[in-house]
Order: sequence, then C-alpha cells, then structure tokens
Amino acid sequence: MAEKSLIERVRRRAGLSPALMTGIGDDCAVMRLPPAHDLLFTTDFTLEDVHFRRAWHPPEVVGRRCLTRGLSDIAAMGGAPVACFLSLALPSKTPQSWVDRFLTGLLGLAREFQIPLAGGDTAQSAGGIHADIVVVGEVPKGKVVLRSGARPGDSIYVTGELGGSAAAIRQLEKGRIRATDYPGHFHPTPRVLAGTWLRKRNLASAMIDLSDGLSTDLGHICEESEVGAEIDASAIPRAQVGHPPRRVDFDLCLHGGEDYELLFMSSRHVPELVAGVSVTRIGKVTRKCEMALVGLDGRRRNLVARGWEHFRKR
Amino acid sequence: MAEKSLIERVRRRAGLSPALMTGIGDDCAVMRLPPAHDLLFTTDFTLEDVHFRRAWHPPEVVGRRCLTRGLSDIAAMGGAPVACFLSLALPSKTPQSWVDRFLTGLLGLAREFQIPLAGGDTAQSAGGIHADIVVVGEVPKGKVVLRSGARPGDSIYVTGELGGSAAAIRQLEKGRIRATDYPGHFHPTPRVLAGTWLRKRNLASAMIDLSDGLSTDLGHICEESEVGAEIDASAIPRAQVGHPPRRVDFDLCLHGGEDYELLFMSSRHVPELVAGVSVTRIGKVTRKCEMALVGLDGRRRNLVARGWEHFRKR
Repeated sequence: MAEKSLIERVRRRAGLSPALMTGIGDDCAVMRLPPAHDLLFTTDFTLEDVHFRRAWHPPEVVGRRCLTRGLSDIAAMGGAPVACFLSLALPSKTPQSWVDRFLTGLLGLAREFQIPLAGGDTAQSAGGIHADIVVVGEVPKGKVVLRSGARPGDSIYVTGELGGSAAAIRQLEKGRIRATDYPGHFHPTPRVLAGTWLRKRNLASAMIDLSDGLSTDLGHICEESEVGAEIDASAIPRAQVGHPPRRVDFDLCLHGGEDYELLFMSSRHVPELVAGVSVTRIGKVTRKCEMALVGLDGRRRNLVARGWEHFRKR
Repeated sequence: MAEKSLIERVRRRAGLSPALMTGIGDDCAVMRLPPAHDLLFTTDFTLEDVHFRRAWHPPEVVGRRCLTRGLSDIAAMGGAPVACFLSLALPSKTPQSWVDRFLTGLLGLAREFQIPLAGGDTAQSAGGIHADIVVVGEVPKGKVVLRSGARPGDSIYVTGELGGSAAAIRQLEKGRIRATDYPGHFHPTPRVLAGTWLRKRNLASAMIDLSDGLSTDLGHICEESEVGAEIDASAIPRAQVGHPPRRVDFDLCLHGGEDYELLFMSSRHVPELVAGVSVTRIGKVTRKCEMALVGLDGRRRNLVARGWEHFRKR
C-alpha cells in the first residue's frame, strides 16, 4: 500500500490525550508532560521471521505483542505509559488488510492503557515487515525502580505464570495450536498495573520484565545489583496451557522468553494477589555473585543464564 | 557479532548528560528534563537498500545520516535535542568493524550536539541492516514552530542550497563519486542552530525540514496551513557540487530529497546569514490553496509535489 495512504490511515486511528499537543502530521510530536515526574523511554523491534511469522501469528496478535514489549518495559520501572510511537516498514506488496488488522491489535492495547499513538515513521522495506515501537512513560521524581537495587536477603518474586509463551512457539513449530489455549502468547497483558502498585508502596527494591527468560533476566538483575540469587524450582509458577491444559516443561519456565511477567525483589512481604495478578515468591537474593537453583530433587546446582533467542529461519 | 557484545560496545561509547539519570542497561532510560518546556519526539528509519547501500556509503556516513534525519526534525520545530535512542538490527554476519564505524559516525554527530545515546534495542535481522533513530528534544512551553502557521503574504525561505544530495545519488548510480565533492550528502549538518535562532526571535511562522524534496515538503506546509505558495525558480539556491563544481539540475532542487535544510515562512525580513548558514527568499505564501512556480522563463505554472522515493533495488 502507498505510504501516504498508510500515514492517513494511522493518523485517523491514532487516539488523543490531554498531554499530546501535536500528534501525527508534523516533523515531531509535541507533548506537555506534568512536572515533578521523571520520564521513561524504551524502544523495541518487532521483526518478521525474528519475532513473529506471518503464517503463525494473526496481524492483530503481532500488533498487540509489538506494543506489549514496550509497555512491559515501562511496567518494569514502576512507571505509567503516556504515549507510543511506531516506525513501520512494509514490503510493497503487504496487503492493506494486514496493516489494518495489525493496527487494530496495537491500538486496541493502546486504548486499554489510554495512550495515544503520537507519531512515528513509515518506509518501504526491501524485505520483510519491520516494526519498532517506542513507549514514553512517567514516574514520580526519584521513584523509578531500577535493576540495581536488589539487596542480599530480599525475597524474589514473579507475577503470573512462566513458560507459556515458549510453549506456544513449540506448538506453532509443530503446526497445531489454538490461540485461546495460549492467551499469554497470543493476547499478552503487560503488567503496568502491578508495577505501579508495587512502586507506590515502595515494595520492589529491583525489577525487570521477563522478556528474555527467567535465567537471563535474573542474571541482569544480579549483574546490575552485584548480588547472587537462589531460586527454588518447586516454587516457580508453571503455566498450564494447551487443550487439555498441561503444565509446561520446567526448562521453558527457566529459560523461555516473552512471558512479559515481572520479576522483582522485595525486603518485605508481598501479597499473593497484586492488581489482579498472582504473585509468587520463588527464591532469595544472596551475597555471593552467582545464581543457584534448588531443584525439584532438593539438590542445589548452578543456574546458568541461557539467553532466549526468539525463533529464526533454521 | 553477538548481541551482548554489541550492547556492551554501544554502552561504553554512549555518552552522558546531566538530564540522563539512567542510560543503557535497564528496561528503560530515565531522564529528568527541565520544567517549563514542551517535549519533541521523532523517529526515523534508516534501512539498507532503501536509505543507503553498503557498497556506496561508508559506515560512518550511514551513522551520521541516520542521526541527521532525527536532528533535522527537531530543528524544524525550533527545538533543541536532548537525547537519542537507537534500535539496530543486524544480519548475523555483519562485521564488527562496520558496526564500530557506524557508531563513530552517529556518536560523533551526537557529541557535536552534546546529546547522549540514552538507550535503544538490538536484534538480529533476517536480512539487511535496519536502524531506527529516536530523537527527543525540548522547546520552551508554547514556542514550538509548527507546519500549520503559514499565512498569506508570508515570505518563503530556505537555508543552504538544494539538490546536492539527489545529485550525489545520481553520481553513485553512475559509479563514480568523491565524497568530499558532495559534503551535504556524505557529511550533512542538521540545521538545529538555525532553527533555534529563528524560533527565539519568533521569525518563523511555519517550518519543515527538506527531507522529501522542496515540492513535497512545501506541499505539507500548504496542506497543514491551508494556504498556497508561489515559488520563484530563479531564486532557488542550487547546490554547486562535483569535481569540478557544477550547478545541479533544477529538477533535483525542486524534487530531490534528503538535503536536510529548513524551509520556513516569515512575515518579517530574515537576514541572509543565520547561525552560520545562508538563508534565501524563494517565494511567497498565497491565499489560494495551490502551488505555483514562476519559471526561469518568467512563466507561471502549477507546481506538483513529486514525492522523493529514495533509491530502491531496481
């Protein structure tokens, strides 16, 4: 579809907010944000055949997951989103219906969080669909939750259940799946409400979103906080997915990515339900800079970060 | 090159600013910006084989042009840049030296404007290098210069000279070129200083940067301001480029893109030199919503926007 028609289609559906003075249609978007806040910025690619496949993912799902990646980063800082920006490059033959349905997924999620699509860029791609989402957020001055605040003795918590998204991809590779059986993968909900709930009560000493997998993201926290961690395998909340529902493989809970849950540390007790989502204590922060896993058999071993690499053309 | 090593390389060279509380290495960048300012946001793709070719453009040039696209948009609002963010997807076989030299070009320009690379994303690309640059800027509250402020009777001005970048691409297609003969294409300077100079004096009623070509970008101003324009062909400052220097074809001045000069309107007289760059009056704003060109032969004809489409695989 033509670039001009694409921009017009996006502009008509982009949404409004009191903070947005000028949206799509000028050289820049102009925003007037409240004082006494720090600003948060995150950018995330969504690339065809890296983060999604057109044969596997309906366009609405690609759009929703695209924005989820950014909102989940804002959630991990304890922030509230204020606007998003989309750079979208399309091969010349991309059907208009694909773009419309992609925007339906993305803008539907934007509406849930009452943020406008404030701007972005469009281009013709030389091959494959490339989207880059930018989300801007805010947090009261000095109240941001970083990766670097974990202290020995803190408890380690996760929201929701883990491994569901990686399990969905395994099923997609096998060629059979019902989207409704894997809602975390096909209809993810970024944990913005839980993140702000924790931040307002100063409950999280450090926080990150689980995009690369528990072992990798826990490693990021340990590195930035200069601490170690001991995880109790039996405590990890394993997703139950599929039809009929089955607990996902333990390895997918440890290393599978894109669950978009929150991993956080706290020196205080955290309730089992926060802003409508379950919270589970899965271990504790240790002084020695290494990660350990107490297995289902009760034995303690090293936990190695096994980075999540999405799926690729193989 | 591996993603982790790429992130570390970028992080070491990313720069600092007093406004940047947390840069690369957390889920989001955190910034504390001065009050009494409006914020500007712009995103721009730089895609291999759409915006550049590896065989034609040295990596430093690709990096510099990538950030120029964003800074030029900030300039067009009369704003000052405060930070940039880079999403960069690379095919697995991209040489480390290409990435290092790309960053040298991008971060060299960032240093010229004293802005940090505050964050971004990295990914493996399924084909081709994709970069998306985000620039955040600021402007005193209510002082932004929009596309929509042009009024009948205003004079129309451009900074610098036009057509040089399109002429460089023609030469690249022919296979022979010396980068030093086409500095505007290979070493562009976004007109941030000229833009803020004009804004501080309330001299520009409307402004846009010349990225898509004069006819197209003038069309954007006319559309948003609901006015027309009459351009005097003989007044257009044609770039003199090449070796020996030659005036570029008139068509390239009218329709060639990526000059990254400013096009603006003013009801007042503007000096011929602004913040070190020449300024030329090229026409006037008219009431009737159409664009006209008074040709070199003195005859008046319609001026049609002929959108700049970059170069593509042909």
